Amino acid sequence: MAQQQAQVKFTAVKPQLMVKTPKAVDAVNFYKSAFGAVEAGRSACCPPPTAEQNLPNILCAQLELAGCSFVVYNDDSAPQKIEGIGNQLCLETDDVEAAISKAVSAGAVVEGEVTEGGGACCGGRVGKVKDPYGYVWLICSPSNKCAPVEA
Amino acid sequence: MAQQQAQVKFTAVKPQLMVKTPKAVDAVNFYKSAFGAVEAGRSACCPPPTAEQNLPNILCAQLELAGCSFVVYNDDSAPQKIEGIGNQLCLETDDVEAAISKAVSAGAVVEGEVTEGGGACCGGRVGKVKDPYGYVWLICSPSNKCAPVEA
Repeated sequence: MAQQQAQVKFTAVKPQLMVKTPKAVDAVNFYKSAFGAVEAGRSACCPPPTAEQNLPNILCAQLELAGCSFVVYNDDSAPQKIEGIGNQLCLETDDVEAAISKAVSAGAVVEGEVTEGGGACCGGRVGKVKDPYGYVWLICSPSNKCAPVEA
Repeated sequence: MAQQQAQVKFTAVKPQLMVKTPKAVDAVNFYKSAFGAVEAGRSACCPPPTAEQNLPNILCAQLELAGCSFVVYNDDSAPQKIEGIGNQLCLETDDVEAAISKAVSAGAVVEGEVTEGGGACCGGRVGKVKDPYGYVWLICSPSNKCAPVEA
């Protein structure tokens, strides 16, 4: 078992954003227009849309952004209020202001001011937007890293 | 501004996992041993460790896993209980059982049984572990995607 464990390889890390059913389609469109995310696929378990439906009845979709993937899915247990709880997603960009402006144009709401070096984990400039589904995104300039420290 | 917005490019998407101060060092070591994450750096704002400290006093560290980055940082406001709220992180692997076993060896706790096709956004086999810092990780086989649907 120890040998098997040592061979464990992960092929992807994907944040999963649940949204209140049936908002997943709206959320996918929002992340496309706000952040330029590209839809990579929908799960095979998604039921096909029917003729009666104006919107495809997706369960979840995989989006790609800056070389990473994240998943948006419908969930009836999605909390209404998640602000400040759990993990946040940070987006790095060289133009924080333009990124915030674009997100706001798509329906996000600015949270606070853009600060200089305010975030422990972010680069020089850090702003925050809350999307229409309750998730807070940090928009920041690339972080300055120091060398790993042997712990 | 519209033209500037259209040019917004993101260079990274990074989940940020806050843990109760001063657990960030412990958490970094856990994610290394449980998932094989590699430390890529610590923020330039980290104060250097002092001679009196057994552990480096980091504010945050960037970890890399499966081609993605995530950040672990100390935060005094880290919630004690975050289960089931906010986004979850999904790790894809071809060997779900070995991955769970390795995570448990490092201190994670299994949540429920490994199920077949139980997750809307995951592949054939899906398990869950909760890490010592309260975060729940989905461990699943690679997802079967269907083609994007024009919405």
